[in-house]
Amino acid sequence: MKGTSILLAAMAMPVIHAAKPKNYVFFLPDGYGPASETFARDYANFVDEATVKLPVDSFAIGQVRTKSSDSLVTDSAAAATAYACGIKTYNGAIGVDGNHLPCGTVLEAAKLNGYLTGLVVTSRITHASPAGFATHVYDRDMEAEIAEQLVGYSHPFGRVVDLMMGGGKCFFLPQSDENSCREDDVDLWSTAQKRYDWTMTSSREAFDNLHKGESGDLPFAFIPANSHMAYEADRDPQREPSLTEMAITALNLLDRKAKEHETGFFLFLEASRIDHAGHGHDPIAHLFDIIEYNRAMLAVKHWIDDHDDTALLSAADHECGGLTLGVPDYAWYPSVLARAEHTSEYYAAIYKDIVHFNSTEAQRESLIIDRVFGDYGIDNVTPKEIAGLVTANSAAIFLGDLLSARAGINWSTLGHSAVDTTLFGYGLNTEKLVGNFENIEVGHFIAAELGLKLKDVTEQLQANQNFVKLIQPNVKAKKLLKRFQLEHEHDIMQAHTRKH
Amino acid sequence: MKGTSILLAAMAMPVIHAAKPKNYVFFLPDGYGPASETFARDYANFVDEATVKLPVDSFAIGQVRTKSSDSLVTDSAAAATAYACGIKTYNGAIGVDGNHLPCGTVLEAAKLNGYLTGLVVTSRITHASPAGFATHVYDRDMEAEIAEQLVGYSHPFGRVVDLMMGGGKCFFLPQSDENSCREDDVDLWSTAQKRYDWTMTSSREAFDNLHKGESGDLPFAFIPANSHMAYEADRDPQREPSLTEMAITALNLLDRKAKEHETGFFLFLEASRIDHAGHGHDPIAHLFDIIEYNRAMLAVKHWIDDHDDTALLSAADHECGGLTLGVPDYAWYPSVLARAEHTSEYYAAIYKDIVHFNSTEAQRESLIIDRVFGDYGIDNVTPKEIAGLVTANSAAIFLGDLLSARAGINWSTLGHSAVDTTLFGYGLNTEKLVGNFENIEVGHFIAAELGLKLKDVTEQLQANQNFVKLIQPNVKAKKLLKRFQLEHEHDIMQAHTRKH
Repeated sequence: MKGTSILLAAMAMPVIHAAKPKNYVFFLPDGYGPASETFARDYANFVDEATVKLPVDSFAIGQVRTKSSDSLVTDSAAAATAYACGIKTYNGAIGVDGNHLPCGTVLEAAKLNGYLTGLVVTSRITHASPAGFATHVYDRDMEAEIAEQLVGYSHPFGRVVDLMMGGGKCFFLPQSDENSCREDDVDLWSTAQKRYDWTMTSSREAFDNLHKGESGDLPFAFIPANSHMAYEADRDPQREPSLTEMAITALNLLDRKAKEHETGFFLFLEASRIDHAGHGHDPIAHLFDIIEYNRAMLAVKHWIDDHDDTALLSAADHECGGLTLGVPDYAWYPSVLARAEHTSEYYAAIYKDIVHFNSTEAQRESLIIDRVFGDYGIDNVTPKEIAGLVTANSAAIFLGDLLSARAGINWSTLGHSAVDTTLFGYGLNTEKLVGNFENIEVGHFIAAELGLKLKDVTEQLQANQNFVKLIQPNVKAKKLLKRFQLEHEHDIMQAHTRKH
Repeated sequence: MKGTSILLAAMAMPVIHAAKPKNYVFFLPDGYGPASETFARDYANFVDEATVKLPVDSFAIGQVRTKSSDSLVTDSAAAATAYACGIKTYNGAIGVDGNHLPCGTVLEAAKLNGYLTGLVVTSRITHASPAGFATHVYDRDMEAEIAEQLVGYSHPFGRVVDLMMGGGKCFFLPQSDENSCREDDVDLWSTAQKRYDWTMTSSREAFDNLHKGESGDLPFAFIPANSHMAYEADRDPQREPSLTEMAITALNLLDRKAKEHETGFFLFLEASRIDHAGHGHDPIAHLFDIIEYNRAMLAVKHWIDDHDDTALLSAADHECGGLTLGVPDYAWYPSVLARAEHTSEYYAAIYKDIVHFNSTEAQRESLIIDRVFGDYGIDNVTPKEIAGLVTANSAAIFLGDLLSARAGINWSTLGHSAVDTTLFGYGLNTEKLVGNFENIEVGHFIAAELGLKLKDVTEQLQANQNFVKLIQPNVKAKKLLKRFQLEHEHDIMQAHTRKH
């Protein structure tokens, strides 16, 4: 009897080499907590009763535990490193462990294994989340160094990124440029083009050519904004494409080039500014960046329907703002959010303009009630509220909190919170991640799906003694970094003869 | 070609009658929002580093959308009715739709189909959640009427519940009893025993006999508390068993009797007071009731491992308190919660005692600092905080908010919030509920799994014209109700000759 059952078991489970996706998309909605999803869905349902679910609702498969190594509440740097390297590290760490040693990321491992790679975000491309996938610095604020590593200028492997879209041009410009955020004369914008073959552009037209046609080569960087790209609610389509447009353009370009090179790709997408809106307590910015994230997720889903060798995972790094729907109690009102056409930042800027108008105080107050409070959706403003705006540290946050209170929602913190985020998946094998996972498990899963060994990449990075020394947090190292960059540049150029 | 593909399709999909569970458990953790899960897990990990997941983390399969028909923020009554009847209704509604018409519940449908049924909770058994599964009143506060329907006294189908465990004895006692919450002379405690064959007991010993042995008959009611049962942190095990003990005792008894009668069972379990602790802003009560919910879920899981004809679904009705982990920012500290051995209600009661001590004010203040603030875990109390306790509307909520602030967590509301809750499943076919669902879909799923037609039950209930009239919200109806109960009682007795 026992023999029989073993035989049956063996027959029932033939050894099958499971199919794996050729391309992987990891889509990070920064600061998108559980309440943010209900929030946007309730609004969508208010606008159109037929909308009972958000697009991403249909892809929900689990939850992600997000704590970092030094706090139960992670920041975006530690969280990006967790997803990218599969390790827990301290808040602020970009691609380094608790000893400031570099860790191999899934993007770097993909690159070393011949995949094409892309980073497409709406924040500065040098911001914590994209940085965590392709660079190594001990402090997320070292965005100048991050920019250098992104183009290949000071990365131990040279250029590991093939495609970049996002904001943050200022960190690529030398300090002589009025738009520069750098404190040195490094002109990465030119250097990237001259020495690393990057096409660097800020032009919407150049993007559109890429978007429409079959042209475009890698490496390609589209960086249309000096700092972050606009919130979706404030976006000028003449200047900046939507995240959805960027995502699909990136997918098409990477897919076409990957097919030419008989390889696959890894693409990191980020709806970066859902988070910024949480920090800023602005329900309008939060709402429309969430809706754009949902649009982009749906577009990626449709793209995958036509490219079933591609898989998608998506999960936030953390919640942001401590959003509660139903304060003081038992109701909240999406209708209150229906009037504003722009974010609180936009109306705060108008307020600052009005303050300087050459008019009577009564005229200015009338304009503030009408064009600031009113246009943002705040009715029946009290004198105390007007006085509050005048004395507020941040007019934008003041307006956001006020509109939120009118809508019956509340922000509990200006930072992040510890609640698990929701995990979304679509495509081959993603059903294996049904359940509750540590963020690092998501990184390991993607690496395994692409057949990548992160540990090997970590060893290669850490074997580079110069680089390891240079990214340690001390002043001497910072000085050495410059020399290293110059010396190293030549080696990198030699190593990169093949251009995607 | 077309013919071939149809043939292939037919071949590929043989008609298989899928296996269905014989028994179903629906376990409701009242007020258990997403942040509550992270909260308890972080604490468990602080106490024992080896604990990286809560038991329920392993059963997470999806999310539940919770809004009611009249608010985006549901109450427990509308939510229980949604799970039980599979309909959206207004906040406050118990087993009735928007027209105050009764709707058939999964428990009633199970009973009419020969299943055994149970309600096991830690609140009053007459509270909204259990009431929504077995009774029909237009307002959740009609707990006297709910008690009547629970024992069979005024339910159109007579007795639909076979097993009850929970608090709320006061609604079964006539107003002459000093513990009564009733405003009439109906003695349900006696009537239930005399006329409906209930075993009614408050005795922990009687429970233990049931727990240990193979004895015990249905219908059986164990109601050891006059109002709600104790919070787990304050529970006296000499008087009240834990939720885990009640859950397993109920499962064993229902299973034994179901096997005798060659049928299955439907059991509603509730960790009722996670919610009360959220309303009360008490992290200690919240924490230990959540941990007990997790213990009970794990025990049910183990029970199912030995009884694989049983399936388990669990989801909260709503979040409660607007809990945020990480206020003001980027950290929260479970260690702060490690000292208290009891809830804020417990220490508030001690405070009230101390206030009446015959001693000097300085002595009383010293005691309050030591035995109230200190024992609850609040160190370095300021004079302002002591004054705050004295003038607080609720000493318990004041203490809870203060301890929460020390721990870096925040409660945004005294009510519920709209965020989706997490769906947990274990056992046969529960993997079909991976994703994001409306709460009513969960009810329909359970009904389908047990082969129940809720619509038929609703029709039967609504065909009872007297009952329909009687539960309409007007004064005349309330008077008629008493007459109906007396007239109806005879019919019910006739209908119920078979006793489980």
